[in-house]
Amino acid sequence: MNRCICPKFEAAIEVLAKKWTGLIIRVLMEKTCRFRDIREQIPQMSERMLAERLKELESNGILVRNVYPETPVRVEYQLTDKGRSIEPILDEIQHWAECHL
Amino acid sequence: MNRCICPKFEAAIEVLAKKWTGLIIRVLMEKTCRFRDIREQIPQMSERMLAERLKELESNGILVRNVYPETPVRVEYQLTDKGRSIEPILDEIQHWAECHL
Repeated sequence: MNRCICPKFEAAIEVLAKKWTGLIIRVLMEKTCRFRDIREQIPQMSERMLAERLKELESNGILVRNVYPETPVRVEYQLTDKGRSIEPILDEIQHWAECHL
Repeated sequence: MNRCICPKFEAAIEVLAKKWTGLIIRVLMEKTCRFRDIREQIPQMSERMLAERLKELESNGILVRNVYPETPVRVEYQLTDKGRSIEPILDEIQHWAECHL
């Protein structure tokens, strides 16, 4: 049986198609955000889940966590170029949604 | 706070970004399949999970379940036009994967 699923495609689905990930990236595509900014945009997601997804996305190189040594410390989440390059995928999802939902 | 996430986009993510869904649609994009054909392509997914995802995708109008009254009965899963129109999303994921993974 030859496998028709490309391993790279499968790896991308593993990274991108996790619950909440698409919405988090969609929010960060608009602007760099603090933790609570993201939670405000996706209120039905728990703090623990958001923290977990942000760590995963950081380890996958999709976003960076900027820490500013102010008082109190300011922490912001920003998409990397790799993260920003996901935009065409989100645009296609938006287009499909407008046509079919 | 104005919400930057489009409700239609959110609904599409809810349908498409479930674990295994992207891979199942990718397999059916190649050809109409029987249950075991799909399982052969995605061996790490359980039968129960595949059955659950196929029901969801059928109820969302993304695929149809064709039943042929032969002996034994033959059941095949086929993408609808709505299902096939997901292809540009998969193509963008493939492109991103080839560039970034």
